[in-house]
Amino acid sequence: MEMVRKKIVVLGAGFAGLTFCQEFHHPNADVVLIDRQNHHLFQPLLYQVATAGLSATDIAQPIRSILSAYPQVTVLMDEVEKINLSARHVQLSGQVIEYDYLVMSLGGVTSYFGHPEWEAFAPGLKSLDDALQIRRRILYAFERAEASESEEERKRLTTIVVVGGGPTGVELSGAFAELARTVLNKDFRHIDPSKARVVLIEASPHVLAHFPDDLRQNAQEQLVKLGVEVHTGTKVLDLKQGLVETSIGPIPAENVIWAAGVGASPLTSQLGAELDRAGRVRISPDCSVPGHPEVFALGDMAGLTDAAGVVVPGISPAAIQMAQHTASIISDELNGVATVQERKPFVYWDKGSMATIGRSAAVAEMGNFHFTGFTAWLAWLGVHLLFLVGFRNKLAVFIQWTYSYFTYKRGSRIITGLGAVKPLGKQ
Amino acid sequence: MEMVRKKIVVLGAGFAGLTFCQEFHHPNADVVLIDRQNHHLFQPLLYQVATAGLSATDIAQPIRSILSAYPQVTVLMDEVEKINLSARHVQLSGQVIEYDYLVMSLGGVTSYFGHPEWEAFAPGLKSLDDALQIRRRILYAFERAEASESEEERKRLTTIVVVGGGPTGVELSGAFAELARTVLNKDFRHIDPSKARVVLIEASPHVLAHFPDDLRQNAQEQLVKLGVEVHTGTKVLDLKQGLVETSIGPIPAENVIWAAGVGASPLTSQLGAELDRAGRVRISPDCSVPGHPEVFALGDMAGLTDAAGVVVPGISPAAIQMAQHTASIISDELNGVATVQERKPFVYWDKGSMATIGRSAAVAEMGNFHFTGFTAWLAWLGVHLLFLVGFRNKLAVFIQWTYSYFTYKRGSRIITGLGAVKPLGKQ
Repeated sequence: MEMVRKKIVVLGAGFAGLTFCQEFHHPNADVVLIDRQNHHLFQPLLYQVATAGLSATDIAQPIRSILSAYPQVTVLMDEVEKINLSARHVQLSGQVIEYDYLVMSLGGVTSYFGHPEWEAFAPGLKSLDDALQIRRRILYAFERAEASESEEERKRLTTIVVVGGGPTGVELSGAFAELARTVLNKDFRHIDPSKARVVLIEASPHVLAHFPDDLRQNAQEQLVKLGVEVHTGTKVLDLKQGLVETSIGPIPAENVIWAAGVGASPLTSQLGAELDRAGRVRISPDCSVPGHPEVFALGDMAGLTDAAGVVVPGISPAAIQMAQHTASIISDELNGVATVQERKPFVYWDKGSMATIGRSAAVAEMGNFHFTGFTAWLAWLGVHLLFLVGFRNKLAVFIQWTYSYFTYKRGSRIITGLGAVKPLGKQ
Repeated sequence: MEMVRKKIVVLGAGFAGLTFCQEFHHPNADVVLIDRQNHHLFQPLLYQVATAGLSATDIAQPIRSILSAYPQVTVLMDEVEKINLSARHVQLSGQVIEYDYLVMSLGGVTSYFGHPEWEAFAPGLKSLDDALQIRRRILYAFERAEASESEEERKRLTTIVVVGGGPTGVELSGAFAELARTVLNKDFRHIDPSKARVVLIEASPHVLAHFPDDLRQNAQEQLVKLGVEVHTGTKVLDLKQGLVETSIGPIPAENVIWAAGVGASPLTSQLGAELDRAGRVRISPDCSVPGHPEVFALGDMAGLTDAAGVVVPGISPAAIQMAQHTASIISDELNGVATVQERKPFVYWDKGSMATIGRSAAVAEMGNFHFTGFTAWLAWLGVHLLFLVGFRNKLAVFIQWTYSYFTYKRGSRIITGLGAVKPLGKQ
């Protein structure tokens, strides 16, 4: 008797979705992976594209190309419009796809804490297009400053405000300070880019709130050394074109980058599942959606306190581990070696965290070991190169980094798609 | 007695403008280089970006970065709005700049031979944004074909028509055929990219009309071997969204690339100077504009039959040589060693021409030597690497090529700026 083939639909080709497709194999199952982009993005390095340190193609790989050796996986580039858990199907822009198992890994979106109108003045950093847009705006602002006759305008054009002192905000502001002070500084004749202001604003009392106290203090010192103005305990009150109103006064700034909030994909709200405050799906210990053992939510869109009592963080290692866990659950069930009742709970394995601040500057914790400065930076470099998907990218990124390290020159400092700059504000 | 400082304004940072800035030095002269982009583009490899073989940053370098060691040169990123030869000034978007000498090297634009409405359906290939747009459209068409249920639609979506059999058209069609047959072919499940149609249409009886007869025949054979349908002696009658009407019948095609005509920059028409049929400025033997010895027109915007009776071709070596000639004329005059009357005429030094057709396939002529196949391809590779501006780019391009050559995998196959795809047609 032949088994009926099972259809597994995976939404999103981030770390969780991609890992699932690579880990799950079953002779009687077909996998369909749906993403609205054609590429997997190495998100931890996205800030390097925004700060002109890496090229877009260095940190992205076509999904099809990563999965070309997995014939059981079909990749569809399409937009998910609606997920219907009771009817067990997913509505795409062009078709409806039914599933036996659904693996949702739709990631997060930038959240403006109830101020969606701020998005127009302070882009977030979630996609390659976001990163390219930020790069374009920053570089173009320096070009306009070079041509400007007004001291006040030049100051505004060369001020960058980063809102949010988590790892992304710390990495962005450190990299912007380096870009201005060590890369752009010899290229202009009428402005001095090394005097550009890079301001990091954080509402809580510390940057890198989730790190141990010694590391977050060290991170702040390293940022200040790089030339970043760090304002902790400072709130953003309002955002307008060219101006940030804060609890310590107004800051005129052409470019504001929003690194303060991550919310779940808007699709979570129409699932009918229970959500946490950030809009993430509260999942069961096995990573499935309560009441729907055939549906899993993984990565940034899922909220879970694991079996060991640890809040699973929204970072790539957690997403990868959840995907591995889910692949083994589904595989066991299709093989008939375990039932839904016998599913094991997910336990997060914390391998440590790191944040880079600049060239030779980072902080890292691994268990009880805390690293700072060059040692932490080397560790960060190694771990990120190790995880980059695809050989070419690893090599290209490595060469680019080595080259940048020794020459302070950035090959990715080009402005493309300039038309896209103009819609912002009323310049 | 101190000499009055002279101001030299250079328009356009293509091969001619950049070479001029690098070659011209005078203690009593300041140079202002104006370009609407912030980068110099290695145009001969632009087709590689359009066909996902190279990344945009591989073939572009920030102008400021190339010229950072030339303190006499100020770079301005701005648009030239009007050139007033009698008042001796240039109107930019934000200011008016006066000059003592003007060096114009504004390059060319895509010309649709009196059919400007075709531009919407058949983008040309002049800028990085053009190349990124073409890459995006082509890759996105394959994605849509994979999801399509209609055989007819799939065929249209995977058909690419290249209009124009000059070097750019030959390079583009060869690279598209390779992309489909050797790169994309394993990535899809519902379509077979190796059956994609790549059609090259040329109105004259031969591709590569300016090459010797044996080489153009060889080029056509190599193209056919790669899977390109070559139609010489064929005219484009009309272009619509998804359809090319030709003198041998209609071809349904989602993507049409226009590589048929190059015209001069539209700014030439308002100079009041005599233009040739392609809109180029007819320059004097010394490369200056007749009646304006202080104004030079170089590169693709200039038309000249040189002192040896050779029509100077619109290719980068000619632009570079014209710039060197102009730099030495101005330098001699500022030094008082030569007068306007003593200017030497420009003589073009033909170093040969080459066109690449694909991996291990090219044609090249150098004097009486004609090369084809792998030998020509090696020569082409070497010459282009040698000329690429900037060390990093040379190395990155070399690695990318070597990697592509051995693995047939393309790291640049990502789709960014997808929003920009949608305005086309009424899909």
